[in-house]
Amino acid sequence: MPWDPDIFAASDVLVTGGLGFIGSALARRLVEIGAKVTLVDSLIPEYGGNLFNIHDIRDRVTVDPTDVRDAAAMSSLIKKRQFLFNLAGQTSHLDSMTNPMIDLNINAAAQLHILEACRLHNRDLKIVFASTRQVYGRPQYLPVDEKHPIRPIDVNGINKLAGEWYHLLYNDVYGIRACALRLTNTYGPGMRVKDARQTFLGIWIRQLIEQKPIQIFGSGEQRRDFNFVTDVVEALLGAAASRDTDGQVFNLGHYEHVSLKELAALLVQLNGNGRYESIPFPEDRKAIDIGDYYADFHKIDKLLGWSPHVILKDGLKKTLEYYRKHQAQYWE
Amino acid sequence: MPWDPDIFAASDVLVTGGLGFIGSALARRLVEIGAKVTLVDSLIPEYGGNLFNIHDIRDRVTVDPTDVRDAAAMSSLIKKRQFLFNLAGQTSHLDSMTNPMIDLNINAAAQLHILEACRLHNRDLKIVFASTRQVYGRPQYLPVDEKHPIRPIDVNGINKLAGEWYHLLYNDVYGIRACALRLTNTYGPGMRVKDARQTFLGIWIRQLIEQKPIQIFGSGEQRRDFNFVTDVVEALLGAAASRDTDGQVFNLGHYEHVSLKELAALLVQLNGNGRYESIPFPEDRKAIDIGDYYADFHKIDKLLGWSPHVILKDGLKKTLEYYRKHQAQYWE
Repeated sequence: MPWDPDIFAASDVLVTGGLGFIGSALARRLVEIGAKVTLVDSLIPEYGGNLFNIHDIRDRVTVDPTDVRDAAAMSSLIKKRQFLFNLAGQTSHLDSMTNPMIDLNINAAAQLHILEACRLHNRDLKIVFASTRQVYGRPQYLPVDEKHPIRPIDVNGINKLAGEWYHLLYNDVYGIRACALRLTNTYGPGMRVKDARQTFLGIWIRQLIEQKPIQIFGSGEQRRDFNFVTDVVEALLGAAASRDTDGQVFNLGHYEHVSLKELAALLVQLNGNGRYESIPFPEDRKAIDIGDYYADFHKIDKLLGWSPHVILKDGLKKTLEYYRKHQAQYWE
Repeated sequence: MPWDPDIFAASDVLVTGGLGFIGSALARRLVEIGAKVTLVDSLIPEYGGNLFNIHDIRDRVTVDPTDVRDAAAMSSLIKKRQFLFNLAGQTSHLDSMTNPMIDLNINAAAQLHILEACRLHNRDLKIVFASTRQVYGRPQYLPVDEKHPIRPIDVNGINKLAGEWYHLLYNDVYGIRACALRLTNTYGPGMRVKDARQTFLGIWIRQLIEQKPIQIFGSGEQRRDFNFVTDVVEALLGAAASRDTDGQVFNLGHYEHVSLKELAALLVQLNGNGRYESIPFPEDRKAIDIGDYYADFHKIDKLLGWSPHVILKDGLKKTLEYYRKHQAQYWE
């Protein structure tokens, strides 16, 4: 582990989106290393929050049901924290097109409120913001490094970028230490599997377990990279622990790149049975699809010694096991 | 003139920020070429709107006092228009830092509302959005072309960029024809001179006419380019008239680049008297100052044959004459 766990021992940590997929996995790790953890989550049904995600640590964390758009409440929650993992977000690209104002309010406006609260009430915390590969738009070259031009192609990408840049700005102008990680596809136990709002992998796993065919949009030849959630948690903690990350953005990514068709085949293989099929790309999704994407993550590797440890095969196996066991908590 | 004025004859044109500096100059030209013009302006005291700006064309335009943040009202205003010149904005970099939410609501959220209104009620209009050089942040090379990396360094730059990108997105995804011009310093009759909210040139001209010293922040060695407002109006009309501009951004700029100190000296010379002085750079402004900036405007020159016609000396002379004559309408 490239960071010192003592940094978080007895520290006061706030996690927005804390009942969500990544937030809850982070909370589990934080509890393990002795942090005092408060999870903020409004449990909006379309988003990733699920109380079951923290069933094993429920008595070791504080849960606050505030919506990050509630500026006054966030203002008071921000006080006296040492770390803020700012993970709350609207993640669905498609929803951002059909309800762009909601996406703006959560991914941009609420971020600005949170940062204003920090400016006014707590300039001494360190913030790690969960950004997204979506800010790059359609890759002009692969793998995509942090110097790749920025050109989001959906409302979600534009608003997440604004949210990310507010963080860097408040770092530079007000000295509120903040950095951003641009996440690629993250998967693992706890992810939303009701639908494709968080990741298509969620709904695929559900289709597989329900013995329905996995549905691939289009040819399935788009290549992607995938991070298992525990690897992402290590990156979040490492980024928070270091002063060298202040004011910077870092890609996460994986050295394994697979096509969606290969991924579906791997899932079927790991599951022991099942099948996949191609269906026509829905028009509304096609308009905002980014094609091939995988990240160059040398920057964070060089600075923090972070690289993914979990290979796709192992991560998918664990994920399948989890949902076979706990499907009742996630299906509906 | 590189565009056909008949395109606008009898056309139905909406201008947001229509009582402002650039909006009113555009309205004057549109009226001259026979367009049916509606000006939307909420006349917020801190912004650029001023009824006097249209005193000579008052009976030839329709004025609507809607605030662009009023989604329902904008929705109804958008219907049946053929052109939308979307110029309303919060322009003060400093105000964007002290009141970031207001900046977000006007420069980002209201833009998204306007585009949603177009998506729902009028996909057949052409939109020209007034963007800003501020999206580039501190130049990494000069002159700055459209390929220059994007990295805004104040809240205003981030929100204006979001506003710009929503327009390009709605062009690409929904076929609502839109383009954006990234303006540099624009000056001329009608600009706000009460303070430095719109352009420092405004307050300088006022200081000169009031026989106070022009105050230059810091060394005054930053180099900038300046467009006289009639040149900007020609660019807006050219961009609206062409189908080739759809989905694109264009810099405006000028081939004359002067330091702020040279500019102050030129103003004093043209005025026949006066003086300038250096004062320390206020900390809050220094933190968001972009340093040297001047634009490469070959892209719009090549596509539309646009280049600035008014040289700085002539433009400043006309501007000084205007404010000497009409200062009562602009001072307070």
